[in-house]
Amino acid sequence: MTTVDRSPYWSDIVSRLDPYVPGEQPRDQQYIKLNTNESPYPPAPGVARVLAEFDSDALRRYPDPESRALVDALAAYHGLAREQVFVGNGSDEVLAHAFHAFFQQTEPLLFPDISYSFYPVYCGLYRIDYVTVPLDDNFEIVFADYRRANGGIILPNPNAPTGIALAQSAIRELLADNPESVVIVDEAYVDFGAETSVPLIEEFANLLVVQTFSKSRNLAGLRLGCALGQAPLIEGLKRIKNSFNSYPVNQLTSAIGIAALADDAYFRDCRDRIVVSRARVGKALDQLGFEVLSSHANFVFARHRERDAGDINRALREAGILVRYFDKPRINGFLRISIGSEDECDTLLAALAQILA
Amino acid sequence: MTTVDRSPYWSDIVSRLDPYVPGEQPRDQQYIKLNTNESPYPPAPGVARVLAEFDSDALRRYPDPESRALVDALAAYHGLAREQVFVGNGSDEVLAHAFHAFFQQTEPLLFPDISYSFYPVYCGLYRIDYVTVPLDDNFEIVFADYRRANGGIILPNPNAPTGIALAQSAIRELLADNPESVVIVDEAYVDFGAETSVPLIEEFANLLVVQTFSKSRNLAGLRLGCALGQAPLIEGLKRIKNSFNSYPVNQLTSAIGIAALADDAYFRDCRDRIVVSRARVGKALDQLGFEVLSSHANFVFARHRERDAGDINRALREAGILVRYFDKPRINGFLRISIGSEDECDTLLAALAQILA
Repeated sequence: MTTVDRSPYWSDIVSRLDPYVPGEQPRDQQYIKLNTNESPYPPAPGVARVLAEFDSDALRRYPDPESRALVDALAAYHGLAREQVFVGNGSDEVLAHAFHAFFQQTEPLLFPDISYSFYPVYCGLYRIDYVTVPLDDNFEIVFADYRRANGGIILPNPNAPTGIALAQSAIRELLADNPESVVIVDEAYVDFGAETSVPLIEEFANLLVVQTFSKSRNLAGLRLGCALGQAPLIEGLKRIKNSFNSYPVNQLTSAIGIAALADDAYFRDCRDRIVVSRARVGKALDQLGFEVLSSHANFVFARHRERDAGDINRALREAGILVRYFDKPRINGFLRISIGSEDECDTLLAALAQILA
Repeated sequence: MTTVDRSPYWSDIVSRLDPYVPGEQPRDQQYIKLNTNESPYPPAPGVARVLAEFDSDALRRYPDPESRALVDALAAYHGLAREQVFVGNGSDEVLAHAFHAFFQQTEPLLFPDISYSFYPVYCGLYRIDYVTVPLDDNFEIVFADYRRANGGIILPNPNAPTGIALAQSAIRELLADNPESVVIVDEAYVDFGAETSVPLIEEFANLLVVQTFSKSRNLAGLRLGCALGQAPLIEGLKRIKNSFNSYPVNQLTSAIGIAALADDAYFRDCRDRIVVSRARVGKALDQLGFEVLSSHANFVFARHRERDAGDINRALREAGILVRYFDKPRINGFLRISIGSEDECDTLLAALAQILA
């Protein structure tokens, strides 16, 4: 996509950036899209009602800069105070502000060597020094290795792209061991089976939990995310936000977010269906010769015991199925496969059977 | 709004920030809102159709990270190539990225001492050195004073909060005089009577034009803005954006933006009505004892020849009318009054007549 490598007009930082590359959103052709961990299910029915009933005249007014209605809905949902909730235009924006607000420190930021690949990108953007901490041979986080001087820690729970969940007891210990550092638990996928750290917020002033509406709320196209934590951390985020864009969350996004949050039964139903499909896909992949990491997310991370992951990735694409392949050390034998609808899972498994036959 | 002054968890920058304070968006009471330069007219009728026809199921998918359809619509509208257009979540976000991408330089950024008050805030966020260049006694920009070493220049055309338009010839000369600096012309209000600098893009590699859908497209609640310039500048913005948030513009925002842009007749009609109202309000304010700066925006900037602006501001508020008062040197005698509907203008003028009687 890069059309120019450098320009004399750029700030120093720009040519040194190594931007994040999201999974492909194809424009040309209908694929079965299992490459970006989107939901196979539509947003809650209340979302369509918001669209049908929204008075477009209201759009001539600026949104509430504090997104009060949405913040209050999230606070009520999580049993928090209004001052403990921050919202943004996707959890990517929320994470960007959090890196800026908390991680420009003397000591380096710590995160796993295999993790959300946006973390080192944010570090480049905000000139944050970081050290990656290797996962063990089972692709698990080794909490003991985080016992070192640091200017912050960020961990996804469950981790991505492995899907492996973290033990609550280990997170608690990490928070207690690092009272002077902000610890972000990135819970993009937490609803699919991991244990949220939100109940630890009351106890730990250094905990920030980040969540998104993109995955378990079926709203990737909306761009809505939030951070939850004690008031001083949320205030730090607000100061950054109010120095960047006074109104990041537009009126429609707030109204749709509130509608999605209100329908807990629908949320649980979609989540449960994905959890059931995940078990079925995992079992079938194992029978097809894959090693499948234990996933608590809406995807599985799997490597074939004999066949090359890049080859399988290309063959699936030719069969009209997109999955995610990371050509990076340690994980270039794996495919990350989003859990689709039952039909999509069937098509995937049939295609793999044919490719591997 | 600030609940905490500082926290040991914050990056150094956070406590030193002096965030932007937007005009009030009241939640409690119905005011006549002439304080944030919103449009008194609804968005184009096509916007309501987008909402009515939008398939909410599509929201489970991420947006196109490049917002191709919207970018192409803007490129066609302005007679530019796709590579010359950047879109973001409001022109505030676009400006933030532009400050980050272009203005971290050895020499200071230059902008008028009386201008959009977000500019120094961005400088604080990105640690950009800046020098403000005084307007003259008639509140006009003195282009000769920009002939000094600089790491960039940003000027609104028309300027805010004065409303005074810049001469195209002066902008052209500024661009030619500063071939090594990026010059941003912030055209938030350009459609209400100033001359756009878009035709100069072909000639000047250092020109970036920033526009918004908030004012002349009646869509402040949508948060959509754009930058227009030669490809290397746009590529610089994309590199920042792709290191911050891969998908800033959500699906609904893109679709609504395209619909608004498509209805040029409606756009011109709303704009023309505001221009007519502005002339009427200006004349009436003059008769009420105000000095009114010559405005090419959707607001007027006016000071009463005898009465205190703060007092008038408070009295208007008590009468249920919000305008903007900046308690800052040089301009604390002025009120910035958005041009409302004909009825709102009547109510404003009647209230002022009573207050000043």
